[in-house]
Amino acid sequence: MSIKKIIIVAILLATAVPCVTAQRKNSKAVLDNIHQRKSVRRYAEKKIPESVVTDLLKAAMAAPTGMNIQPWHFVVLTDTSKYDEIFAGNGNMRMFKESAVVIVICADTTVTRPPRNNPQGAAVTAPNPMWRDDMGACTENLLLAVEAYGLGACWTACYPFHDRMNTVKKTLNLPSNVVPYSVVPIGYPRIDEKPKEKWKPEKIHYGSW
Amino acid sequence: MSIKKIIIVAILLATAVPCVTAQRKNSKAVLDNIHQRKSVRRYAEKKIPESVVTDLLKAAMAAPTGMNIQPWHFVVLTDTSKYDEIFAGNGNMRMFKESAVVIVICADTTVTRPPRNNPQGAAVTAPNPMWRDDMGACTENLLLAVEAYGLGACWTACYPFHDRMNTVKKTLNLPSNVVPYSVVPIGYPRIDEKPKEKWKPEKIHYGSW
Repeated sequence: MSIKKIIIVAILLATAVPCVTAQRKNSKAVLDNIHQRKSVRRYAEKKIPESVVTDLLKAAMAAPTGMNIQPWHFVVLTDTSKYDEIFAGNGNMRMFKESAVVIVICADTTVTRPPRNNPQGAAVTAPNPMWRDDMGACTENLLLAVEAYGLGACWTACYPFHDRMNTVKKTLNLPSNVVPYSVVPIGYPRIDEKPKEKWKPEKIHYGSW
Repeated sequence: MSIKKIIIVAILLATAVPCVTAQRKNSKAVLDNIHQRKSVRRYAEKKIPESVVTDLLKAAMAAPTGMNIQPWHFVVLTDTSKYDEIFAGNGNMRMFKESAVVIVICADTTVTRPPRNNPQGAAVTAPNPMWRDDMGACTENLLLAVEAYGLGACWTACYPFHDRMNTVKKTLNLPSNVVPYSVVPIGYPRIDEKPKEKWKPEKIHYGSW
């Protein structure tokens, strides 16, 4: 093979191979990220760029949602001096104070189907039986985006614990139809946490239980 | 620059560039996948390899779970001839029958904290207040893995609709402490569905509502 041919082959490798295998690599990246997600409870003293926080919230808002209701709202907190009041009595206080940002994921539990899907244009007032399922998916999307950015987070429950809910609701001035669902501290990991191994093939039942 | 140097540079490009940008590409792949996930309701007549179904279930079992309880179980269905009975009265029948596989994601609602986390080794019998939140995250993990594989799926609710739950529970022989939570048909997409745009910056509240 001539020197010229070798150069052409090398250049083709540099460009073509990454493209051909991109789809496969992307699938692997997604699955690896799902398996690498873990609860991170200790954070380094380092701020998170605003644009990254926005990306995390965009991922959260891309969650599936029954009847496209999108019940979620987000309160973004960074002023740790207020946490003693907002999270009074919450056992996760050290984690909240150490994190760079705390996102309180809230749910509007009244049905407000977006007008574009509602020919009458009026809010449907029947209770939404699926808001809690949407919120679980929404919180998981946020956590997966956190992992993808090399950040760490921990899902702490607010709903259905009434003491926690009442304190957060009052101090954050949430409307009466909005409940605080989960509280997620986020930061750059200070310790290298490992994900739990949860694969249990005996939990799969083929055809019937 | 000599021919030899050019060859060395080309080879370095072929190997080093993809490695250096891998982390960044992986983050992008994860976020793109979250934003590309959509409900797919029409499927091509094509089987899904068993190993892929297993990968989807591995992703589902990697979901976050309060107190590491892992309430999930999975019933994997492919025999469409039984669907008239299992999903009697369910408006999503066409979708189920067209799909390559239907996964019924179930929840054991009684607390059975894994023995390794429970010094006494006995099952904790208090009700688990967070099983439903775990199940939302678990279903979302499955849907994101589906998207990563170029497959399509649709989250259909079973819980908390008692008619659907009772029929599925009886026909699939679920134990009394297990509820069918969601029913997810999966297949290769027959139509190019687009994800909904759900980004609404007005849903973000800084510092307080």
